Amino acid sequence: MMTEKFPSRLLENAVNEFAKLPGIGRKTALRLVLHLLKQDVADVEIFGHSIIQARTEIKHCKICHNISDGDICNICSQPDRLPEIICVVENIRDVMAIENTRQFTGLYHVLGGIISPMDGVGPADLEINSLIERVRSGNVAEVILALSTTMEGDTTNFFLYKKLKDFNVRISTLARGVSVGDELEYADELTLGRSIKNRLDFESSLSQ
Amino acid sequence: MMTEKFPSRLLENAVNEFAKLPGIGRKTALRLVLHLLKQDVADVEIFGHSIIQARTEIKHCKICHNISDGDICNICSQPDRLPEIICVVENIRDVMAIENTRQFTGLYHVLGGIISPMDGVGPADLEINSLIERVRSGNVAEVILALSTTMEGDTTNFFLYKKLKDFNVRISTLARGVSVGDELEYADELTLGRSIKNRLDFESSLSQ
Ligand SMILES: [Zn+2]
Ligand SMILES: [Zn+2]
Repeated sequence: MMTEKFPSRLLENAVNEFAKLPGIGRKTALRLVLHLLKQDVADVEIFGHSIIQARTEIKHCKICHNISDGDICNICSQPDRLPEIICVVENIRDVMAIENTRQFTGLYHVLGGIISPMDGVGPADLEINSLIERVRSGNVAEVILALSTTMEGDTTNFFLYKKLKDFNVRISTLARGVSVGDELEYADELTLGRSIKNRLDFESSLSQ
Repeated sequence: MMTEKFPSRLLENAVNEFAKLPGIGRKTALRLVLHLLKQDVADVEIFGHSIIQARTEIKHCKICHNISDGDICNICSQPDRLPEIICVVENIRDVMAIENTRQFTGLYHVLGGIISPMDGVGPADLEINSLIERVRSGNVAEVILALSTTMEGDTTNFFLYKKLKDFNVRISTLARGVSVGDELEYADELTLGRSIKNRLDFESSLSQ
């Protein structure tokens, strides 16, 4: 397929665009575009516009940096959540994974990644200052560090612990029911639910 | 992921749209949309519009029904192709596959499928009448039936053969045999059987 000749420049453009997506090869891209060519015009327009609209209109919550349709996300704006417990996660998929366990009723803080010198991600690239501000100004009783149980996750956990330990808050981390080395979003719901329920004080987790 | 709660309706819409594509599950759809949310707005707009444009502007060649940017595709309009040889294929991917072999210099006729009573596809759903018209009105010397070597392909081949046999044209089909590079013991019985039956004089096989 490397030397493929497309019968149409428009087809080639669309295939090239699809093939830029992660995990989508050129053969799959062609199959997807040919599938779309067979759908109703109106449906393809809805598809294309839904993506553009997501990109141009989706906001990030001003409190927790979760994806949101408005200034404040639909988790932060729920009156029955406990604002004094903040669960710190890497990304939005982790928020969705924890929400699916139905074991957590506090709020979140989405860092937007983890500290990874290999990938050029330092503390300044993440929503760390805004987390410290939330802890400083809010009535926060507990910060749960729910990052991946990888080396980068551990590094980030420890960095946050040092920044937060002098505030009067409990700093906890996930019970290691989640296997060490797992990326959080791939953990099954039951394990993840248990891990959040049985969360440990971060300091005691260091001695494990 | 069945009970997933999305933090944003716009995100959910885009994920639902992606998940309608064949072979794209909901987890993959979410991963793709979150990837696009991180790209430049301009790039996402190019992506979305390239798909809509492909659907609304791509035409089908009036001669061979191949995908085309204009009324006549860029194969039919090449002056150095041989218009007296027509290769009949099911779909556009087959045109691209044969073009990639660089072994064929005639024109194509894209049926748009094969006869498949199980899928409710009959002769009237395919570009069969226009093929007969091409043979009737053009200076066609040979029609190559290059359909899948499946039962449906054989049925369609035979249907076309009956329609075309009274015209003064050679009707040929793809050589069926053990693929080049195959280890004999892994070839399926039918292929191997046909290959033995249609065996070539060794000397003539040397010139292939
Ligand atoms: Zn929020
Ligand atoms: Zn054509």
